[in-house]
Order: sequence, then C-alpha cells, then structure tokens
Amino acid sequence: MKPIRLGMVGGGQGAFIGPVHRIAARLDGHYQIVAGALSSDPARAAASAAEIGIAPDRAYADWAQMARAEAARPDGIEAVAIVTPNHLHAGPIRAFLEAGIHVICDKPLTATVAEAEALAQVRPARSARFLLTHTYSGYPMVRRARAIVASGALGQVRRVHAEYLQDWLTDPTDNKQAAWRVDPAQAGGGAVGDIGTHAFHLSGFVTGLAPQALSARLHSFVPGRPVDDDATVQLRLEGRAFATLWASQIAVGRENDLSIAVYGTKAGLEWRHSDPETLLFTPFGAPTQRLRRAGPGPCAEAAETRLPPGHPEGYLEAFGTLYTDFAALLRGGSSPDLPGLSDGLAGVRFVAAAARSSQAEGAWLPLDPA
Amino acid sequence: MKPIRLGMVGGGQGAFIGPVHRIAARLDGHYQIVAGALSSDPARAAASAAEIGIAPDRAYADWAQMARAEAARPDGIEAVAIVTPNHLHAGPIRAFLEAGIHVICDKPLTATVAEAEALAQVRPARSARFLLTHTYSGYPMVRRARAIVASGALGQVRRVHAEYLQDWLTDPTDNKQAAWRVDPAQAGGGAVGDIGTHAFHLSGFVTGLAPQALSARLHSFVPGRPVDDDATVQLRLEGRAFATLWASQIAVGRENDLSIAVYGTKAGLEWRHSDPETLLFTPFGAPTQRLRRAGPGPCAEAAETRLPPGHPEGYLEAFGTLYTDFAALLRGGSSPDLPGLSDGLAGVRFVAAAARSSQAEGAWLPLDPA
Amino acid sequence: MKPIRLGMVGGGQGAFIGPVHRIAARLDGHYQIVAGALSSDPARAAASAAEIGIAPDRAYADWAQMARAEAARPDGIEAVAIVTPNHLHAGPIRAFLEAGIHVICDKPLTATVAEAEALAQVRPARSARFLLTHTYSGYPMVRRARAIVASGALGQVRRVHAEYLQDWLTDPTDNKQAAWRVDPAQAGGGAVGDIGTHAFHLSGFVTGLAPQALSARLHSFVPGRPVDDDATVQLRLEGRAFATLWASQIAVGRENDLSIAVYGTKAGLEWRHSDPETLLFTPFGAPTQRLRRAGPGPCAEAAETRLPPGHPEGYLEAFGTLYTDFAALLRGGSSPDLPGLSDGLAGVRFVAAAARSSQAEGAWLPLDPA
Amino acid sequence: MKPIRLGMVGGGQGAFIGPVHRIAARLDGHYQIVAGALSSDPARAAASAAEIGIAPDRAYADWAQMARAEAARPDGIEAVAIVTPNHLHAGPIRAFLEAGIHVICDKPLTATVAEAEALAQVRPARSARFLLTHTYSGYPMVRRARAIVASGALGQVRRVHAEYLQDWLTDPTDNKQAAWRVDPAQAGGGAVGDIGTHAFHLSGFVTGLAPQALSARLHSFVPGRPVDDDATVQLRLEGRAFATLWASQIAVGRENDLSIAVYGTKAGLEWRHSDPETLLFTPFGAPTQRLRRAGPGPCAEAAETRLPPGHPEGYLEAFGTLYTDFAALLRGGSSPDLPGLSDGLAGVRFVAAAARSSQAEGAWLPLDPA
Repeated sequence: MKPIRLGMVGGGQGAFIGPVHRIAARLDGHYQIVAGALSSDPARAAASAAEIGIAPDRAYADWAQMARAEAARPDGIEAVAIVTPNHLHAGPIRAFLEAGIHVICDKPLTATVAEAEALAQVRPARSARFLLTHTYSGYPMVRRARAIVASGALGQVRRVHAEYLQDWLTDPTDNKQAAWRVDPAQAGGGAVGDIGTHAFHLSGFVTGLAPQALSARLHSFVPGRPVDDDATVQLRLEGRAFATLWASQIAVGRENDLSIAVYGTKAGLEWRHSDPETLLFTPFGAPTQRLRRAGPGPCAEAAETRLPPGHPEGYLEAFGTLYTDFAALLRGGSSPDLPGLSDGLAGVRFVAAAARSSQAEGAWLPLDPA
Repeated sequence: MKPIRLGMVGGGQGAFIGPVHRIAARLDGHYQIVAGALSSDPARAAASAAEIGIAPDRAYADWAQMARAEAARPDGIEAVAIVTPNHLHAGPIRAFLEAGIHVICDKPLTATVAEAEALAQVRPARSARFLLTHTYSGYPMVRRARAIVASGALGQVRRVHAEYLQDWLTDPTDNKQAAWRVDPAQAGGGAVGDIGTHAFHLSGFVTGLAPQALSARLHSFVPGRPVDDDATVQLRLEGRAFATLWASQIAVGRENDLSIAVYGTKAGLEWRHSDPETLLFTPFGAPTQRLRRAGPGPCAEAAETRLPPGHPEGYLEAFGTLYTDFAALLRGGSSPDLPGLSDGLAGVRFVAAAARSSQAEGAWLPLDPA
Repeated sequence: MKPIRLGMVGGGQGAFIGPVHRIAARLDGHYQIVAGALSSDPARAAASAAEIGIAPDRAYADWAQMARAEAARPDGIEAVAIVTPNHLHAGPIRAFLEAGIHVICDKPLTATVAEAEALAQVRPARSARFLLTHTYSGYPMVRRARAIVASGALGQVRRVHAEYLQDWLTDPTDNKQAAWRVDPAQAGGGAVGDIGTHAFHLSGFVTGLAPQALSARLHSFVPGRPVDDDATVQLRLEGRAFATLWASQIAVGRENDLSIAVYGTKAGLEWRHSDPETLLFTPFGAPTQRLRRAGPGPCAEAAETRLPPGHPEGYLEAFGTLYTDFAALLRGGSSPDLPGLSDGLAGVRFVAAAARSSQAEGAWLPLDPA
Repeated sequence: MKPIRLGMVGGGQGAFIGPVHRIAARLDGHYQIVAGALSSDPARAAASAAEIGIAPDRAYADWAQMARAEAARPDGIEAVAIVTPNHLHAGPIRAFLEAGIHVICDKPLTATVAEAEALAQVRPARSARFLLTHTYSGYPMVRRARAIVASGALGQVRRVHAEYLQDWLTDPTDNKQAAWRVDPAQAGGGAVGDIGTHAFHLSGFVTGLAPQALSARLHSFVPGRPVDDDATVQLRLEGRAFATLWASQIAVGRENDLSIAVYGTKAGLEWRHSDPETLLFTPFGAPTQRLRRAGPGPCAEAAETRLPPGHPEGYLEAFGTLYTDFAALLRGGSSPDLPGLSDGLAGVRFVAAAARSSQAEGAWLPLDPA
C-alpha cells in the first residue's frame, strides 16, 4: 500500500510534539512527510524542512500558502498534521479542511471556545476528515477498558476518578515548552487545558458517558503565574455517575502520571500510564485480574497491537495507533474510536467552563453537548 | 514494669474492632485486661468476658456501674478502652474520665457535634488522659512523613490528596458490621464518617496544617441507603494549602486503600496503606527515594519500631504503637503525636460540615478550630 | 481459656529474636511468660527477667536448672521457647523435652548434623511436643500457596525458585547480631544456614515435595569471612521437579527479601515477603489473579486470620500464628502445617550437604529423608 | 540526511521478528527498505515484498542473488537486515559482508559454533560493519546501568543474577513461532539459545566483565520436546564475580520477563523488562533511588532518548535505538555499546558449552574469549 502524503504545520527545530507526530506517522509505514510549514520564520522553516528530508520547494513559511499550493499539486499532500501552539490551530485547520486536505491536530482543538465553535461549522471540501490526537485513547489497555465498560461487565458506572500529575512547573520557569503553556493568550488555559483535557477526554472515552455539568477549582500555586497549575474538577455524567478529575503540574515526584479508575455496580477498572500495559479488573467479590496487552481475559481483542505480551509498547506506539487508524479511515475503513472535532469542542468548552466555575467559587455549570 | 490495668466497653462476641484493641493492648505487654462491659446484654457480656479471661466479678453489663465499681476498687482499672458503635461513645467517655480513669476510644469521637462539644467541656478527675485511636497515625512511615514535613524538607505545603477506598458496601448489605454503619442515628455519617475522618485526620497529622473550610459532595450510590457511601471533600488548609479527600465504600477492587500524597515547594511525599512500610520521597529535581521503615534516609528515627527493615509490620503494630505510646504517657512520658479530644471534636465537626455543605450544593463552610 | 505457662531460654537484653518470640507468644493471648534463663550471666539474666515481669525466683541463669526446677513445680512452665544462638539449641531442647515440657525453638534446629540426629532420637516425657519456628510458614498467603498446590490447581510441579536476599553483611561487621552468625562454630553455616534454610523449608512447605539431592555453590565475598555470605543451591525434588535457591547477605538494596515462585503444568504461583498479603496465581492461558489475604479466590479459607483484607498483617502475625497453632495442638487440636523436628533435621542436613557439595565443585549429593 | 538504503532477508508474511526490524528501521527515519529476499518461496517472496512497498525488481527469492545484484547496482542497498531462523544466518551474513554490504542480524548469530567461528574469520569488503540485535542493550535504563557500573559507583561487582522467563511453551505446541525454536537443527538450542543468550549478553553488557567458565543444567519439562525449555547456568566472571542465569519457557504467568540484578561492594542495581523505564539503584546504607529514563540521578545522560520522563518507551524504541546507533556508526560516528560479531560468537559458544555442561552433570567448562 502506498503511504499517505503528509504535510506538517509547526514542529520546527526545538519543538517537542512535532517530532513525536513524525515518529507516529512513520511507525507503521502509512505516511510519508513531503511538505511542511514548520516555522513562520522562513530561514528556520527551510532549515527544519531540510533536516527531515522535505524538498525545498515544499518547505513553506506560511501555512495558508502551503494549503493553496499543495491542494493545487497533483502530488499534493493528502493530509496535514498541525502541531503549533494552541492559539494557532484554528486557522490552518479551517484552511486545510476547506482545501480538501485531511487534518490531524494536536489537542486541545483551539485556545478559545469561539474558535472551536466556528470550526464546528466548517464544511470540509472533498469530505476531508479530522483527527484530534488525544494520545491516551490510542493505548491498547485504555481501549480495552472502554470495551469492557461497553460490554456491560461493570454494570452501571457510578464513580470515576482520573488524575494527570506532573511536576515540571513546580518552580517558575522560562523554558520554551513552558513559556507558551503559561501564557493564557497562547494556551487558553494552564494545567486544566494542557493535561486536564486529557483526563476529561479519557473519562468520557472509557465510560462512554457524556458529561453534563462541572464544578471546578483552579489554583496557581507558583506566585505570579497567570494560569492555573493545579485543577480539581467535579463532573456529573449521564446516568447519575460522578467523576472527579485532578490535573497538576506541581506534584513533585510525578512525571506524567495519568490514571483512571472506574467503579460500577458489578466491577471496577484501574489503568495507570506509568504501567500502561496493565489493566486491573475486579469483578465484585472476585480476585483482581491483571489484564495485559495482548494477553487473555475479557475483551482481549481490543488490545491486540504490534507485539506479543511482555514486549512493552508505550507512548509512541499509542500515538502511532491513532495515525494508523486514521490512515485506515482515510482508505475507506471505519475507526469508531478516533477523537474528532466534537471531542475537541467538548474539550475547549470544558476548559472554559472550568475557569468560569472556579471564578464563581466552584459553581456548577452545564456542559453543552458538543 | 507492671502492666496497666485495662477495662473494655463493647467488643463482645462477633465484634470486629474490640479484638483488634485487645491485640493492640497486649502486643507490647503494657496492658492487662481485667474488667469489661463487653455487651449490654448480661448473658452475652458474661460469656464474652469469660472467653477473654476476665474474672466473673469484673464482667459488667452496664458501663456506668463498671465505672463506679472499678473506681472504687484499690486494684481497679487504670484505663478503659471504648469500642462501642459511635453513638454509644459519649456516655462512657464522660463517666470514666470523671471517675479518673484514662480513656482510649475508637474513632470517631461521637455521632454528633453536640456530644463532642459537650465532651470537650468534661473535667477529668485525677488528670485522666484521653486517646482517640486514629490507627493510621501509628504507622511508622506516616510518622516519618509528618517528621519530614516538620523538618522543612518539603518547603511550603501546596497540595494534599488523601483517599480511603473500600468496596464492601458495593451491594446493599445486612451484615452486622454494615448495619450500624449505614444507620445515621448510630453512625453519625456514612463513608465520610467511617473512613473519611481517617483521611481528614491523616491530612492534618502529616502536614501539621489546620483545616479552615470545606466544600463536600456526598453520594449514596446504593439505592435506599440512608447515608453516604462516597464522599468527595475539598479543604482549605492554613498557609494557602489545598487538600482533596475522597472516601468511598463502593470502589470495587479496593480493599482498605488509604493513601496520602503531599506536594510542597521543595519536595513531595507519597504513602499508601497497601504498602505501609514504604514512603516515597522526591526532592524536586532529584530521583525518588524509597524510604523504608527502620531504613536509612531523612527522619529515620521517626520510624524505628520493633523490627529491622524488611520484616513487615502492619495494622496491628500501628494500633499497638498507639497503645504503647499512651502507656508511656500514663507513666509520665510525653507522646506529642497522639490524637486526643480535640482531634475527635475536629473529626465530628468535619463530618457534620461535610453533610451540610453537600446539602448546599458544595457550599464552602468554615471549620472551627477544635 | 487459661494462657499456657511459658519459659524462655536466651533472649536477654540486646537480643533480636527473643523479643520477637515474646510478642508472638503474647499476640493472641495464648501464653504467659513466667520463667526464663535469659542469659548465662547471672546478673544479666536477673535484670533481663525483671524487665519483662518474670518473678525473681523463676529467673534462672542455667537452663538445666530451670528445666529441673520448673518440671518440679506444680505451676511450672508447660512450654519453653529456646532463642539462643544455634550451637546452644540442642542441650536445652533435649533437657526440656525429657522433662516433659513442650519446646518451641528458633531455627535452625542445631549447628551440626550430629546434634540434630541425636535430637531425633530423644524420647520426650509426657508426649512433649516440638515446634521449630520457620516463620514464613506462618504467613497466610504462604499457607494458601501450599493449599493451592495441594488442591491440584498447579498440575504437576516442574520448577521452583526461592530467594532470600539481604544486604546487612555487605561490609565486614562487628555488631552483635552479625558476630555469631559469621562464626562457623556458633552458627553452623553462613547465609546458607541463617536464611538459606528458610528458602529450603519454604520450597518443601509450599510444594509438598521432598528434596532428593542438591548441588551447591557457596561464596564468601567479604574477604576474611569464615562462612559463606552467598549461597546458590540446585535441588532435585521428588516427581522430577527442579528447584533453585539463592540466599545472599551481600545483595545491596535487599532488606529481607524472601520470595518463591512455583510453576506447574497447569498454573503458576508467586509470593514475595515484601508484599506478603498478595499471592499471584496464573492458570495457564488466563489472566494473573492477585489473591489477597482474607480475599476471594481459590483456597481462600487457608488464609483467614485476624483481620479483614487490606489491613496488613506481617512478620509478627506470622510468628504469632505459629505460636497460636502450637497452642491449639497442645490443647488437643491438630495443626498439620507446623514445622517440627524432622523439618529441623532436614534443614541441618541441607546446610551440611550444601557445604560439602560446594567444596566438591558443586557435586550432586543425596539428601536423606528426615 | 538521506536514509540508508536497507534490504531484508527473511521476514515474509506471518513472521514475528521481521516486522519488528522494519518498525525499528523506520522509527527514527534513518533507513528506507528498498529490497528484500523475504522468503525462499518465490510467490511468497513477491507477495511479501509488494505488501511492504518493495519494487518488484528488487524482490528476490534468493539472498545470494540479492547480494550480487544489489552490490552491482549504483543505488543498491547499503545495509541488510537478516531475520531468518537461526540456522539460516551464517550464509547471508557472509555473502553480504563479502559484498561490502553492512549487516544487521537477529540473534543468536548462528545455530552452531563452527558457523560462528567461520564468520569470525570473514573479511568484509569495503569495511562493511556488523550489528547483532541484542535488543535489550538498546534499552535506555540498561545502558544507564552499564554506565553506572562503569563509573565505579558499584565498587567491585560480586554477584549478578539475570532471569528471562516466559510461559508460552508450557504446553506442547505446533505454532509456527514455536516450531523452529524447538527444532535443534534450526534453532541450535532451546530456551538457553532463544532467551538465555539475552540474559548472558545482558550480564556482560551491564557489568563489563568477561565470562570465564560456566556450569549449566538444562531441562526439557515438556515430554518429547527435543530441546531444553528451562536452563539454569552459573557463570564465573572475571574479577571473582559470580553470576546465575535462569531462562525458562514454562514459567506460567511470566510473559517475557527479563531482569537483572547486580550487587557490588558499594551499591546494587536492579532492572526489570516489565518496568523498563525504571532502574533501582541503592548505595549501601542509603535509600533506594528510583532512577527513571530521562530523569535525574547518576549517569542520566546515558538514558536520554526520544521522550521526556513519564512517556513510556518500550521494546520497539530499544530496537530502534540499535538501528539508529548503527546508522550513526555507518555515517562515521562511534557507538561503543553496539553488539557485534564477537558478542555473537560468545553467545553461540555459551549455548554450546551450556549443553555440554548439562550433559556432564553440570561440569565447569571454560568459555573462551571471543
């Protein structure tokens, strides 16, 4: 099968998530990167493109021009990955979708609700598709958790708790990765947007339950920081389930510690990113089962990926699975688990509602269906 | 050294916590149980007493009579352990303290705030002392955590999270242990009182910070249950620290899973009851250290107990340490870490405030200093 | 029930294992220590006895005299605990058994095979019984492992691996606990005797299979140490099973890390002392089950002890269970799991054979049935 | 940088390790697969090649022809990956090296010592280089372990233990992956060759110590199996260190559980494949440090790879790192950690010596330096 021709917006020299997207695209051999607007600085754009093997005539400094030029080429890109800071997502998403080019975008969708709502109205040309890379939904055991809940094995879901804990913003910091993340204009939120949205998406992804309302409390523990570095959110989910989310970037000793626990009337599930190949499953009154990727037990088929059990897959493989499933979709298959525009809109609304609730002393605010 | 003569109120045949107190009293050889009002049913009181070697003339069916009779004997009990259901604590506490007999009482102090406040006014005869058995504060690594925070190694505490998760009330249940715990009149609260108070006490014990206000959300997930079986509480602590507590009795797969994480400006700490001999300590920017009971590292002396490292101590030893430290106190020593009446009053006020806050949609309510 | 009157030989001030035996005896209330020859130094014997509440007239400096005197008293001890260094076990064991007093002895049975074989010929007066405190066989989940193997759930046992790793003898040392353990005359062996015997006993206890032959390799890594500080042993067990044992006292970072894995034709089991309340059980082709003390799953009844699941029991409880089961035996019950003289003889023969095999470059030597 | 043109021998439809090599080659973008002799069956070779995008004129059924043809093309492959069963390694290795084409070969090097010794005499044309893919030496924390030992932080190494436990051959099996592995002619050994060689290589890789002699015991627990499915090996390493290795394919419940522990005079190290991002490091007398990939602590720079800490990398990334480091070598850099022909020869000699030792009841046999 021929690889899909891929472009990239953002991800020039020094970027973190751009190279991750490139590995993810390459991992299973379904994409080839042939064009890019890797930086808005022409010299840096050209140098970055050369470094990753993009031909000079397809190294752009302006994504709008790239969208026009590539759409016009017979060998133009079929899809584009957008890996710019959050406030620079909306423009290229619209431009490429309207040019009939499929879009893969890093989360969150946008920095503001208005942008996200406008995007929801975009009419893509030529049925162009959209993927929001909520990485954790690409983990095999997260998908198996979703399958187990969907199978009814948990009974009715009662209680969900998801955490996403980091410590890299414990001190005031001026590194490049931190700089835009703590600037409200560029990021659209602090911990709640950067990592809280992952916990939020994961809760819905695993349980299949729509969130209905939230109450949030955001803190900025580092003096002078303009955005939150710690967020506690309570969620009412459909079916009278209740969820708590905790995102923190000042939890000293936690690296990138996402976890989720789901408790139902009949069984419980626990998954933790630091041991991503394991899912603890406990039917009430029976021993806890340590389910493993590619290993036996309920819904095993939901977690069959590249390697036999005991050969650890991790973050890049989860990311690569999103790309690979999207490739299958683009080739006419179906991929019901992939996050799209509505997930993105829900995430941005979640961030905005959390900020407003926190300012109102934790008032309960409704979350509109996306 | 001669053992302290101990009596017991409650803890007759079929009880859970009574036998635990007896083992704890016996463990280090500092107490001898010589009298008891183990049941209000005379026949059961007598049979229960005989079973544990109490002489028939000191087996009472009425604690008030026991307090009078023992206070009058030259060889009367010096201390009494009260292990009745929560709503039957206040009476014997007052009676024994006023009789000049030291009191050891299971938590929570009482089932109502009014009872607890009244107890706070009691004038014990002969300087009788009071111990509230908040078991977890007897764990060596919990005490070491407290010592590390007190040493300043964490800097300023910012964020605390404590969980106490069980699953035994997942289904409607009619067992004896469950029956009074889900009866508001006997228990004074559900999960928030039975186990949430442990998480609450632990947060204050480890951080040394007084709680100032709370916002709570209590759920009764099992239909028809008159008390909460899941409680989420947010706490404002002095010094601008923020804590979240989660107590649940419907978390399928969790046995008795208490944990606490404390994050400061300079370091973080994590302790979990399922691995009680370990404390994870991470100075910001340095590797996580796995501190162990009786092992090297900061504040090692706070966790020196009976056995060398690697010989696991557990719940009974933690409980026994409270008894042993109290014996030292009764013999004229000091034991600054022991929970007393003010901790008990604080706990009962916490439960009451949590219930009121939850009824008011999570409104913030002040917590008076005890 | 009246407590059993207990004496103690050894265990004076500064001892490690003596206090452990005393706690174990006290834990469940089945014993009362009323006599002791705690030291061969009269002044220290008296002071040590006073400290633990033994009446002066029953504080002996000579165990032989104690055996005679106690046997002659109408209120004399019914049982004695022997907690001296290894080379001082045989004398008192014989004396007390022949005086009709039950004996509880710390392991290993003796320092030499000749002593152990002689003891096997002793005819106890009045059917006096003998208990060797192989502590680890008192752990609930070790007993559950034994029950699961006995139930046939593993099929035929093929492969066993047991480790006992410590690090406290990493450096040359002159502390009291170390001194006699590294003296061949007092200890009868180094790591292989002090802890290797535990791994050896555990292998037989869990599998129920008799060892038939061994090949061993002992090392003394610390220059000048006269006994081994690291022992690797291969064992042929009956039924064509094969076991490897590894005992080390120079494994830096391991505290007291005993573990056992048993693999059969149908399932596997793993237990580790650092998490003693858990047993991993994997039927071939099915998920691993995390069995817990007092929790559900196969052979649950073999691990019902004092506390509900999630309230950790540990070393003292395991030790106490041996004492409690022995009390039941003395009162006429049955306790099929308790280690006795034949286990002790097997252990001493194991140590001797290991030393001879190692000197013969790992030659295979038969292990006589005890 | 232009990708290196890569060919592949073996790895057609249904293969396990072939696709792994392809992902590893692709991961960091340093290789492009342009030719292959993926099967000796012409139709399957052609179909397999088409599936992975190899042009029909470069899809060969005969590796000898491929070596000749590719060496003759101006755009011929620069390197080749050999992923055939073990007994089919030697021929293509020689052919490609002599054609001046770099060789990447799956381990073990060959099925016999004679083949391996012959290969050691091959004179590659044009300085062609050789990589043996001992995957585990590509794990960041394994490399960090090696660096820590090399730094002297462990002092003198005394004791090493490495395990590689699987359970997939618990029952007699006829699957394709199993079939050739249990055929002595194709595999050259059973568990000892398939996975024991990994443990053997890892021991030398981490400690930097050459093995001098071994004593081995191989078992075939499954009746009728012509090769071992369980291997226990003792090794004498230079400097008076002692190692034990255990490889098993009948350890029910173990997936692919490689681990290594190294104990020196000053510190200890433990690494386990099931948690590959963690290395436990204990300086004697200090707390255990939980070192993490890309995290702080000793020799951190040895484990800097693609992602920040807490974003798990795994098996494919370790494999990819070997490919990437080899690419750096081919481009003129240095990669001192990469396994080569001498490691391969040592491994094959290890397997042969283990078989002979086991037949001689565990006799000690010297291991020649490779």
